[in-house]
Amino acid sequence: MYASDSYRSLQKQATRFETPDYHLKQMIKNPERLGEFSLGLPGFFFDFSRQRLDKTVKNILCDLAEERGAKQMFARMAAGEKVNTTENRAALHTACRSFSDPDLIPAEPKIIQQMQKVSRAMRSFCSDIREGSITNTHGQAFTDAVVVGIGGSYLGCECVYNALKAAHTPKIRLHFLSNVDIDNFGEVITRIDPETCLWIVVSKSYTTTETMANLAQVWAFLERHSLLPKHHLVTITAKGSPGDDPSNPVLASFHMFDYIGGRYSVSSAVGGVPLSLAFGPDLFDRFLKGCSIMDSHTLHAPPGENIPLMAALISIWNIQILGYTAQAIIPYSCALSKLAPHVQQLYMESLGKGVDKSGTPLPRPAGSIVFGEPGTNAQHSFFQLAHQGPAFPVEFIGVLCPGYKGRQVTAKGVYNHQELWANLIAQTLALAEGLDHEVPARAFGGNRPSSLLVIDDLSPESIGMLVSFYEARTVFEGFILGINPFDQFGVELGKVLASGIRKKMADQNSNLDHDLTHVDPTAAFYIRSLSAGKMG
Amino acid sequence: MYASDSYRSLQKQATRFETPDYHLKQMIKNPERLGEFSLGLPGFFFDFSRQRLDKTVKNILCDLAEERGAKQMFARMAAGEKVNTTENRAALHTACRSFSDPDLIPAEPKIIQQMQKVSRAMRSFCSDIREGSITNTHGQAFTDAVVVGIGGSYLGCECVYNALKAAHTPKIRLHFLSNVDIDNFGEVITRIDPETCLWIVVSKSYTTTETMANLAQVWAFLERHSLLPKHHLVTITAKGSPGDDPSNPVLASFHMFDYIGGRYSVSSAVGGVPLSLAFGPDLFDRFLKGCSIMDSHTLHAPPGENIPLMAALISIWNIQILGYTAQAIIPYSCALSKLAPHVQQLYMESLGKGVDKSGTPLPRPAGSIVFGEPGTNAQHSFFQLAHQGPAFPVEFIGVLCPGYKGRQVTAKGVYNHQELWANLIAQTLALAEGLDHEVPARAFGGNRPSSLLVIDDLSPESIGMLVSFYEARTVFEGFILGINPFDQFGVELGKVLASGIRKKMADQNSNLDHDLTHVDPTAAFYIRSLSAGKMG
Repeated sequence: MYASDSYRSLQKQATRFETPDYHLKQMIKNPERLGEFSLGLPGFFFDFSRQRLDKTVKNILCDLAEERGAKQMFARMAAGEKVNTTENRAALHTACRSFSDPDLIPAEPKIIQQMQKVSRAMRSFCSDIREGSITNTHGQAFTDAVVVGIGGSYLGCECVYNALKAAHTPKIRLHFLSNVDIDNFGEVITRIDPETCLWIVVSKSYTTTETMANLAQVWAFLERHSLLPKHHLVTITAKGSPGDDPSNPVLASFHMFDYIGGRYSVSSAVGGVPLSLAFGPDLFDRFLKGCSIMDSHTLHAPPGENIPLMAALISIWNIQILGYTAQAIIPYSCALSKLAPHVQQLYMESLGKGVDKSGTPLPRPAGSIVFGEPGTNAQHSFFQLAHQGPAFPVEFIGVLCPGYKGRQVTAKGVYNHQELWANLIAQTLALAEGLDHEVPARAFGGNRPSSLLVIDDLSPESIGMLVSFYEARTVFEGFILGINPFDQFGVELGKVLASGIRKKMADQNSNLDHDLTHVDPTAAFYIRSLSAGKMG
Repeated sequence: MYASDSYRSLQKQATRFETPDYHLKQMIKNPERLGEFSLGLPGFFFDFSRQRLDKTVKNILCDLAEERGAKQMFARMAAGEKVNTTENRAALHTACRSFSDPDLIPAEPKIIQQMQKVSRAMRSFCSDIREGSITNTHGQAFTDAVVVGIGGSYLGCECVYNALKAAHTPKIRLHFLSNVDIDNFGEVITRIDPETCLWIVVSKSYTTTETMANLAQVWAFLERHSLLPKHHLVTITAKGSPGDDPSNPVLASFHMFDYIGGRYSVSSAVGGVPLSLAFGPDLFDRFLKGCSIMDSHTLHAPPGENIPLMAALISIWNIQILGYTAQAIIPYSCALSKLAPHVQQLYMESLGKGVDKSGTPLPRPAGSIVFGEPGTNAQHSFFQLAHQGPAFPVEFIGVLCPGYKGRQVTAKGVYNHQELWANLIAQTLALAEGLDHEVPARAFGGNRPSSLLVIDDLSPESIGMLVSFYEARTVFEGFILGINPFDQFGVELGKVLASGIRKKMADQNSNLDHDLTHVDPTAAFYIRSLSAGKMG
């Protein structure tokens, strides 16, 4: 990317945006600006009129997308090409929900057959649990399910579960056991009745250290309660993994495929089983439908009208050209409180890379920090810095209709949802416009960029569009940067070092070896302190 | 600060750290390094040996602290001087827990009298609720309490509540109603029984928009259930505020004082009432004891041995000199999962400023982004970027003994808590050392700084030390930068703009005014869309 004509052209544009005429407070005075710098689909609106760009920049960004073949890459990804080159794998999360648009159906027919087979099994199993045709051995219906998995095996599911339960009561309540910290297990077991609880173990390889350590606790827990895995355990794992072994019988097992990476997996069985248990297979299908609407838009809309592509281009403009190092995701919706952690993983794990696809070091490492909390909470937390400290771009998300349908009253003449929106609108304007004030501590420089994404409601279709939007935005950014958004070699070194330290601890547990002289001195110091239960 | 000799001297040191000899992998080879770059108190250990500094830098940083009078400022703060100059207020959070160290007792005797009066009332009320001497009108004991408050009125309390409940079962369960989003209210009421629930409204002025809007919902909710505020409502507010008005009777009311800011208030009644209800006044006293141990250390230890001061100096070195723009807080403990959001507010709201105490614009805005998730979860989320993307310093937190005391089994020869620590140790080493590899995508540059804070356990004393550490670290950073860490004028502009938009919405609700022609066109567009329930 850095050698492309359009990239060089963008660099030349940047200085203009340091002049007063290009301060956001000037640019947004143009009444045409909102119309020119927003894009919409039914149920999904993207307003980037308070980003620091103009038509010239927008056009060059679209040229960049063309030059980098971003849309072609997306089409090749959806067709099943092995776009994850370092691991020689396809990236087919779009195939989980591509039943209507023929252009989204992978070239290899086996893929859709595999997907549909899992989908049918999932539907049947989840319906049976929900309707009580599958019960525990006492004939009691299941009430709770604990998802045992870490990273991409739960973050997407947790995000969607939280989003949907604002407007839909889960029939099976979900809980998440991700952290190897025993206090995660300790906390989860206070919330469930062992007799009516399912444990859904999610691990492609069925060797993920944390998940296997937690599974060991779950097996022991079931045994203590005289319960059998074949009645309470469900696995979501690769075909032929240790979790897909008939000699270890479980209640049900669903396959994951190597062409769907963890952080892109919420529309596969990884999200499908728990979410269908909670809300029913029909509702999960509506979520997939929402994803597929955004997928089709992404595949077909030209660069200047393509919402995820435009968002990716703005992100590149902000990070690579204007030099911002972080971006906040601020949904004005409690139900979306787990969106930022999900996108944090999706984005930072996909794009936090030091080399391009061919292994050549980048001029500077790619990616940026993503963080966020829901508004208005964020206003009372870190927005002081957002307004007067070092600037960072914000992506606001608004929801036109809340999930709650019960009774409510007004305060100061407005409903809470109106108050929420009054604040949302005010923040986007305040960041852009700023305010001159004779007291310097009360002055605001403004010119702080933000976007506003709006969805109609918290319906599964809307949430599906939002999830797919972030997936597409992320892969586009990788395609344009020329990096592989599907691998994660950066997590390997820590695993290797942890393995050596674990080995020492295990030897100590077995009284095999108390000699720490050959261990890194820092590691040895902490291993000793941990054994002693105090430092030093 | 920027004009001080020691600051200029630090700037000259920085280039050295770009040379290979000063790569962390070289520096940590020195077996003396851990001893030289760590500080400890009984129960609290701070290892900064994997920060990018040496003895020379450490000494100049201590000079900077002396030159800036950091410790004297802390002493003046604790004595009750009006260090919050822009608002002409003292900052006396240390006085909430200063019953043993005479040097921490404010000069004005009235302060401690006020504190002790609230403390006695709190203890008596919370004991009565817990023991069932105060019940609902049917004689049933209360089981749940909802804290209604936003920002500093709940983040610290939520953090400490989560930390303590790993090892202590709350007698009264706490819930948090912070967001004005009606879905926050909608979710909270699914978790409580109205008959046995207390509502604790926390607002100094009793005019905070979100809190008052939620309080309106609570009043209506109580009325629908034929319950009276005088039996179910508790207020924590300033003397004489609308929440402290005998003509609106409530079950109990506790005073807040203008010399304790929201983000520093968890050791006041703001944390004290809910936490004493949940865990009992004795346990809350132990939390205060932990705070006061750290306060005394902070007040008395010389710069080179002062843990919060050293942490503040390192932060200044990293942000102002080495140019990092964000810092992560990664506790390897689920129980500390709300520490990062609490510190995010504490730090970003205190230090995210554009002007110094005298109102002079800073050469560049102060503060940095703080974000984080617990490990090992973070390893499977954004640590890809931490290792191979743009670098940021990490503050790891380890806990020697977990809260869970139940039965458990080993996996790969180790207990989960050992696995957790093996990963924690491995991450600190991996970030520092990196790894050469012939495949560039598998190579790690290393030289990424981190600290490791260790506490013994999740006891209230340990959590108190941790909370006080972050408070002191934050104020020190403000004192050294020469900014006011106690005000937050950056949140004002949004409030003013929201007020204008709310007024329009209220007028529309009353059919008084449908004319939006004089409203900002962007605001008008969204107000219309919100009324219509769809965009455009």
